Amino acid sequence: MLSQYESYLFDLDGTVYNGEKPIDSAISFITKLNQQGIPYGFITNNSTKTPEQVADKLRKFGLYVETNQIVTSALATALYVKKKIKKARVFIVGEEGLETAFSTFVKDETQPDAVIVGLDRHITYEKMSQAARLVKEGALFIATNPDRMLPSSNGLVCGNGAIVAAISYAAQKEPVTIGKPNKEIITMALEQLQFRKDKTILVGDNYETDIRTGIDAGMSTLHVKTGVTLDCSTYENQPTFSISSLDRWQLEEV
Amino acid sequence: MLSQYESYLFDLDGTVYNGEKPIDSAISFITKLNQQGIPYGFITNNSTKTPEQVADKLRKFGLYVETNQIVTSALATALYVKKKIKKARVFIVGEEGLETAFSTFVKDETQPDAVIVGLDRHITYEKMSQAARLVKEGALFIATNPDRMLPSSNGLVCGNGAIVAAISYAAQKEPVTIGKPNKEIITMALEQLQFRKDKTILVGDNYETDIRTGIDAGMSTLHVKTGVTLDCSTYENQPTFSISSLDRWQLEEV
Repeated sequence: MLSQYESYLFDLDGTVYNGEKPIDSAISFITKLNQQGIPYGFITNNSTKTPEQVADKLRKFGLYVETNQIVTSALATALYVKKKIKKARVFIVGEEGLETAFSTFVKDETQPDAVIVGLDRHITYEKMSQAARLVKEGALFIATNPDRMLPSSNGLVCGNGAIVAAISYAAQKEPVTIGKPNKEIITMALEQLQFRKDKTILVGDNYETDIRTGIDAGMSTLHVKTGVTLDCSTYENQPTFSISSLDRWQLEEV
Repeated sequence: MLSQYESYLFDLDGTVYNGEKPIDSAISFITKLNQQGIPYGFITNNSTKTPEQVADKLRKFGLYVETNQIVTSALATALYVKKKIKKARVFIVGEEGLETAFSTFVKDETQPDAVIVGLDRHITYEKMSQAARLVKEGALFIATNPDRMLPSSNGLVCGNGAIVAAISYAAQKEPVTIGKPNKEIITMALEQLQFRKDKTILVGDNYETDIRTGIDAGMSTLHVKTGVTLDCSTYENQPTFSISSLDRWQLEEV
């Protein structure tokens, strides 16, 4: 296949690596993009890590990555809040990735404009209650992502969506969610990376998150069978392309 | 009004007391029941306290109360699980009230028959994750109550329903819920107290929890305007009686 795309937006887990193991076809392909000067970026629902930490992981796989090529759900959320509310005062539930993304925002524990919820593996009942109370009192309720469960060395553990569900149930308010399968993360990523939506293709392994989000965002999608979804054919809306691995995707000669 | 009821089942907060303040009309009325030898019991969604602790609070208001007249949602849950599963092995998320109610059950942290969730103000991410994992793997998922938020000295805090919502979202399973507005708590209370449903009247202040639950359970209901709901007239299903306070309710001469 010949590619008419000017830029590439990659999902990470299942697309570029599986857990701690790089996916060779993706590494070779992204290296080729770099060599040919074709822009690329990465999006991840993970809100606990900073873009720097994510970039470091990719560099260990031998990829050339600048920190600003990484858009985490935490960063996308900060970009979103910046656009929606001028000088927003925020209350943060989350870890280092979210704290860093919001480091320039004013923190407010009693009357914030927005309560921002990302995965917090040290969450306490008091913090959860405070978030629920502030949301109930009218603060904008924003979730970095709706992940249900995540793999860990102890087996599956709760994703951010579980914490968000607790706050949402208590406060009887629904959040605005930025991460996949919500298209806000893509909108923010394209803006941050200065990619044109009609000239960019989203590459992902998971139909329910990556491909669905790309389709919703109105962009071209490339499904790779190196991760979660091995067969997209039963879905009503098909990805633009579906291939076994990025070995099967050819770039035009430059 | 003359009463044809043989026994009385009372809600607590808003019906017998408001927070730490006894409701005089209720105290006098229950004292009269005791003097006339008319059986009465109490139900509460609170799963953190033991029946003994709840009875102590009522005794401080001058009421005569035996511990076995108190049916907490924790106790009702234990009775429910005992009926549903023989020798159930359980994983407990909760505080002293729930631990005590399940003290005779075998605990199992890896392959329980049921995961029992009551309010746990010391909940950790690890415990929440473990509960979600066990529920996802097939353990019966049982919630003591679906309370959203509760008053506290720090303002509103999360109720058990918030913790249940987190686990439910992560595991993609709905719980069986015992406490109000679910009628299981009434079914278990009537059984424990050996009250006949058709000869018992449920007394409560909150239409959405107490009265609705009594109606669902198919029993007579007496609404008192000493707590949350001051006017029931807009509801489709009316309580059997609605009075300003228990001063307005007369017992037959014995």
